[in-house]
Amino acid sequence: MGAKKGNAVVAQSGGMTAAINATLAGVYSKAAQAEEISKIYGSLHGIEGIINDNLKELNLNSDEVEMLKVTPGGYLGSCRYKLPTLEKGPEVYNSIFETFKKYDIRYFFYIGGNDSMDTANKLSIYAKTIGYDLTVIGLPKTIDNDLPITDHTPGFGSAAKYISTACAEVYLDVKSFDIPYVVIIEAMGRNAGWLTASAALAKEYYDTPDLIYLPEVTFDINEFFGEVETLLNKKKLVVAVISEGIKNADGSYFCDTGALTSDNFGHKNLGGSAAILGQMVKDKFGVKVRPIELSLLQRCAGHSVSATDINESFEIGGAGVGAALSGLSDVMMIFERAEGSEYSVNIGNCPLSAVANVERKIPREWINEAGNFVTKECNDYIRPLIKGELHPVMENGIPQYIVCK
Amino acid sequence: MGAKKGNAVVAQSGGMTAAINATLAGVYSKAAQAEEISKIYGSLHGIEGIINDNLKELNLNSDEVEMLKVTPGGYLGSCRYKLPTLEKGPEVYNSIFETFKKYDIRYFFYIGGNDSMDTANKLSIYAKTIGYDLTVIGLPKTIDNDLPITDHTPGFGSAAKYISTACAEVYLDVKSFDIPYVVIIEAMGRNAGWLTASAALAKEYYDTPDLIYLPEVTFDINEFFGEVETLLNKKKLVVAVISEGIKNADGSYFCDTGALTSDNFGHKNLGGSAAILGQMVKDKFGVKVRPIELSLLQRCAGHSVSATDINESFEIGGAGVGAALSGLSDVMMIFERAEGSEYSVNIGNCPLSAVANVERKIPREWINEAGNFVTKECNDYIRPLIKGELHPVMENGIPQYIVCK
Repeated sequence: MGAKKGNAVVAQSGGMTAAINATLAGVYSKAAQAEEISKIYGSLHGIEGIINDNLKELNLNSDEVEMLKVTPGGYLGSCRYKLPTLEKGPEVYNSIFETFKKYDIRYFFYIGGNDSMDTANKLSIYAKTIGYDLTVIGLPKTIDNDLPITDHTPGFGSAAKYISTACAEVYLDVKSFDIPYVVIIEAMGRNAGWLTASAALAKEYYDTPDLIYLPEVTFDINEFFGEVETLLNKKKLVVAVISEGIKNADGSYFCDTGALTSDNFGHKNLGGSAAILGQMVKDKFGVKVRPIELSLLQRCAGHSVSATDINESFEIGGAGVGAALSGLSDVMMIFERAEGSEYSVNIGNCPLSAVANVERKIPREWINEAGNFVTKECNDYIRPLIKGELHPVMENGIPQYIVCK
Repeated sequence: MGAKKGNAVVAQSGGMTAAINATLAGVYSKAAQAEEISKIYGSLHGIEGIINDNLKELNLNSDEVEMLKVTPGGYLGSCRYKLPTLEKGPEVYNSIFETFKKYDIRYFFYIGGNDSMDTANKLSIYAKTIGYDLTVIGLPKTIDNDLPITDHTPGFGSAAKYISTACAEVYLDVKSFDIPYVVIIEAMGRNAGWLTASAALAKEYYDTPDLIYLPEVTFDINEFFGEVETLLNKKKLVVAVISEGIKNADGSYFCDTGALTSDNFGHKNLGGSAAILGQMVKDKFGVKVRPIELSLLQRCAGHSVSATDINESFEIGGAGVGAALSGLSDVMMIFERAEGSEYSVNIGNCPLSAVANVERKIPREWINEAGNFVTKECNDYIRPLIKGELHPVMENGIPQYIVCK
């Protein structure tokens, strides 16, 4: 029931992760086995590939699927295209459905964040309006872990593993020096501090980090200076991990000196908070300071991904195809964490419209009262997501990833 | 012959690497088996531990030795202490030899770079002057690979592996976006570009990086702009890897805007070249720019070291003890690459005085004529050094390293 003959298209969108190709691999593997789906196309550069008739038929063997699972970045390319409303851009909708018709696309799988779910939702509504039989499935993706409803997002676990590992390793390096030293590590996260919070897992094994600052709590520079001063007196080395999106009391970004540019969705391009804060610490205390911006490294470290993340990301892709074949549409697949002390997830779904443009932040009760660290509950939530190791095949010391020709 | 009863002290100095503890593990393992050596002390924070009577007797079991081999940073701590000349600081020499006498130290193993070899050499000369029977062995260490005589330095291979891997992974991330995009990756290297050059190994498998700029060749901003313009027209995405120490025609550092501080050896604390250059590219071309400073991450990534580097670093530590027991002194152990197409090294030695304060740079003929990439000969030299993978034991997704209590 609900199953139909036709072709499928899959696309990737938004910021990259080390696991977004695992989801693509999951979609491909399941779709390739499905009688109802004849051909599987990849749309190059997200929705733009569909608008511009830039599809590529996918034919991957099992070795290539395995390589794809741990290849960072978007195998099909990505975009940050903001779909206009139907009123403002009817020609765009027209182009998209021309492509759908030309390739007899009946299944559309969109791997992305909340902006992408908004796009998928708009196309699903439009398809009904014009009577075009289209199944639309959203597959979550973002290192930021800020999508609502799903317990967590594919890609977060690997980024969190990179951050907590980097935090432990940087600590072992800098603690070698017996001098007053302040290290400020900057993780991504505009409005949600999940990535930054993951650094706290390093503290379960090492005496670091000392401080964690998140966008969820107002950043007060004087309180920060006070903490640094106290710590410098006590232990010389101070390691603070901050979100790129830490905010001043008036809600403005700490790093916003007026020169920030914005992307197509109006999101400001952040980064530089650690450098700015580092200079302030140097001016105030005159000690050695090292700001470290983890930048793209935190989201593309395919050489050391979380096995939990990659395996779940693969499974949710396949589950999306399964949902489509069972007749579901207009949903995003989600992880539901099972009750109990042993970690396990089920894959469910929710309406696309429930996800679009909603950001999930760290609950205030998972942040300590002073607003400069996270609680055990937060650690308990993140810990299982970084577990397990997967490594790419290596040749001459270089990871062997698959690149779309 | 030459072997004597007594105790040994080992110390680590200068900038950290992911392999400096492997050399410590090698020294410890071999010394623990030696009849001539009763106790093995670690000096905390390099030579400062000896000056300040801050030694710790080392007793490690075989599991701990294995953990130590892949633990980044300095297990014993480090320092950047500049030993004064005897004329200027006789009391320092006095303190050092007081400690040697107190602990009956007859073997001194110093793991460090060229500044450390200078220190070791001075102590060796002083020991002879006062008639104190001391065997002094230097063990090379630096991610910069800039020590003379030795084919390469312990720690370089793991850092080079991190850089070439990061370069490939960042490329896969940024190439997902079909927009004009300039990425500038900054590697360490004040005056020698070995680390930056290692990014070229990524190009044996991926279409990146496009440009490599080293301290060995004058950096001309207009030539750089010309290359970027040509590449932007041809392929949209441009990835340049630069050394922190790229220099202007007058020999000044590109990143030196007048605000740089210096360490105890008068070396300027560099960093920020990518950020400065990135801003210039943005101003000039108006395209998306991403500067990425690899910072400490490139020298502490114990989660993904080069097996060749770690194993060789361990072996050279043991070989240093072997040399001491055979009656050698006042030498630094070195790698000698065997002739032939198959990579292999022998461990030899050279006088400490030949190493002190000498920097080895990339030969000009290993850099292309335009000065913006390295040649195949350079790749052939670096390639074997990043080969093979070793990973730490993991627990809950976090690497388990050993920390000195």
